[in-house]
Amino acid sequence: MKHESRAPFSSAEYQRRLVKTRAAMAERGIDVLFVEDPSNMAWLTGYDGWSFYVHQGVLIFHDADPVWWGRGQDANGALRTVWMGEENVRGYADNFVQSTERHAMQDLAELIRARGYGTKRVGVEMENYYFSAKAYVTLLAELPDADLVDATALVNWQRTVKSDDEIGFMRKAARISEKIVDGIIERVEPGLPKNELVAEIMRDALRGVDDDWGDYASIVPLLPSGTDAAAPHLTWDGKPFETGAATFYEIAGCYRRYHAPFCRTVFLGKPPDHILRAEAALVEGLEAGLEAARAGNRACDVANALAAPLERAGIERGARAGYPIGLSYPPDWGERTISFRAEDETVLEPGMTFHFMPGLWMENWGLEITESILIRSDGAAETLCHRPRKLFVKD
Amino acid sequence: MKHESRAPFSSAEYQRRLVKTRAAMAERGIDVLFVEDPSNMAWLTGYDGWSFYVHQGVLIFHDADPVWWGRGQDANGALRTVWMGEENVRGYADNFVQSTERHAMQDLAELIRARGYGTKRVGVEMENYYFSAKAYVTLLAELPDADLVDATALVNWQRTVKSDDEIGFMRKAARISEKIVDGIIERVEPGLPKNELVAEIMRDALRGVDDDWGDYASIVPLLPSGTDAAAPHLTWDGKPFETGAATFYEIAGCYRRYHAPFCRTVFLGKPPDHILRAEAALVEGLEAGLEAARAGNRACDVANALAAPLERAGIERGARAGYPIGLSYPPDWGERTISFRAEDETVLEPGMTFHFMPGLWMENWGLEITESILIRSDGAAETLCHRPRKLFVKD
Repeated sequence: MKHESRAPFSSAEYQRRLVKTRAAMAERGIDVLFVEDPSNMAWLTGYDGWSFYVHQGVLIFHDADPVWWGRGQDANGALRTVWMGEENVRGYADNFVQSTERHAMQDLAELIRARGYGTKRVGVEMENYYFSAKAYVTLLAELPDADLVDATALVNWQRTVKSDDEIGFMRKAARISEKIVDGIIERVEPGLPKNELVAEIMRDALRGVDDDWGDYASIVPLLPSGTDAAAPHLTWDGKPFETGAATFYEIAGCYRRYHAPFCRTVFLGKPPDHILRAEAALVEGLEAGLEAARAGNRACDVANALAAPLERAGIERGARAGYPIGLSYPPDWGERTISFRAEDETVLEPGMTFHFMPGLWMENWGLEITESILIRSDGAAETLCHRPRKLFVKD
Repeated sequence: MKHESRAPFSSAEYQRRLVKTRAAMAERGIDVLFVEDPSNMAWLTGYDGWSFYVHQGVLIFHDADPVWWGRGQDANGALRTVWMGEENVRGYADNFVQSTERHAMQDLAELIRARGYGTKRVGVEMENYYFSAKAYVTLLAELPDADLVDATALVNWQRTVKSDDEIGFMRKAARISEKIVDGIIERVEPGLPKNELVAEIMRDALRGVDDDWGDYASIVPLLPSGTDAAAPHLTWDGKPFETGAATFYEIAGCYRRYHAPFCRTVFLGKPPDHILRAEAALVEGLEAGLEAARAGNRACDVANALAAPLERAGIERGARAGYPIGLSYPPDWGERTISFRAEDETVLEPGMTFHFMPGLWMENWGLEITESILIRSDGAAETLCHRPRKLFVKD
């Protein structure tokens, strides 16, 4: 059966992505590349589905269209989402799934050999969710004459500069992010059970804005309060919000898998001085960082610009202050390439997008005020969301 | 700073889990076990947080309390959620995170050596989300005198039989599942944009039932319609529901990370005969399977009981028909041990819980009617949810 492709981008854009990827493969002498990262799969082929809990991937060749490979039942999803034809979709038998006797990589190896790459250089994403240690060891054993080479983040690096269409998706995501944050500020009050606020956050996120329907974000809302805000990755419970505590909200609107993460903090009651001082230093640091986030500067320049006012306020951040964003699947909405940190000297280019994320997680309090940003050809970075850059206080 | 533990189970229960795990380690001659699976981490220590996108884990010793190990900023979350004390929480420096120069497993190896296990048998979960190929290769290189042995699913197998407290959590999750499905059946109608229904599903899921607040499920709602229902793992878009199509809803209520998956299908309009015939065969198969799902029988007995009426109706399912459920984190709500399939001869025991999941994904239609079940000491399996086992029709 023939299905019309629903891939979200034009053929020309997918071809451009393939050309970039093949050039990077050639540079490293990679004959065929196996991509298991769901974000990379989607970026290259349009594949979309919550099937990454079993082994699947895309094979990228220099001289032929990509082949989607995965569980038999998910081949139906591939036929409906990728831009390639039916002949480029290959499903494996269901008894490979979570079997104690066989491994899906045995099937992949057979395909690689059948395509004539059993003695070639095969790139694999060694550091990736989903390409497990066992997958690697099995592939090694099944392809004794091939040379498995580490292609971690090879595709991710091709994704750093966004196309105009991708930026368009991220702007839609940013509208959703704004809507979520507006809803939070409006609704939060002492006594409201936390899970009830999360229910409204998710509802806003999925309803989207006008015709731009909301997709699921790759991370659930994070919203620890008071002393718990020291811990960046706590989720929620059913306890009520209390007066006298700051809660940070780490959320992202998502449009067709493209994210615009956006964090704000709300204090219920009268904030203590140490939080107000931190807010002032953080806002100053953000503004300095936005100024430094310009084409030709380096990732570390942003980190250093941020650090100066924070250090003057006696705040030392140990964590990186940002990462690239765009297309993503759980468990992370970052692209896992560049980091805003002192040791990263990557030069910023127009069209790069980041979550500038200088979260403060101190011993017994926390504060998050962040921006999703776009590096422009000229001038300081553009923020994708437009909401006051401050601590919100509801007294 | 001392924090009160919020671990959801009693000390006695965690100790019982540790004893079982250590016995399984001893059986395989494992001196220390590194557990990266977030579900296993939570089951053993209570750790809870969306931090599994960076390397983290728990070390299990025979003669000492577990050690939580992870990113420095997440140590704050560990202090707030695990039952062990501060001295058993160890954070690593942030520049290990997504670095191109260093790997967190270098830090873990140092800890393993420091604890005296550098020349011992170290168990690792080779087939697991998050324990990447690179993690394994790095650990191998850093522990040249240790013997790394595959402990895939060692802990998962200890989780198959649930305690009364765990079953209590799953019953709460089941109430939430019922609420979600009731809401779907009430709300779905031609013209309703699909994302708007998902927004209400998520809202119901997170609001929970009475005081039982909703947690995030490990898989987002799956709800393909019409010919798309051939593909089990498609998510949603903003298109309206249409008359003349079946949509299956694969959802799970979740209470404190415990799931009760539950699927029903709704047809808008008058269902065609082939779907009604499939419904009849599927319901007969489910009932036969529930009868077969009893202590002393094997996993394959359930699969075979289901298959007979389906085959009589000319329906051959390629996929497994169920898997164990309970505590889970994304990307999957299954426990990844037993499968309801012809080749799995695992004997069923009282207290085991499964998602009996005989989804039909045919070439151009699909049907899901499923049950979360509990194996009892006597008699057929108990279903955790209580809603009519049928195709719902809104004409």
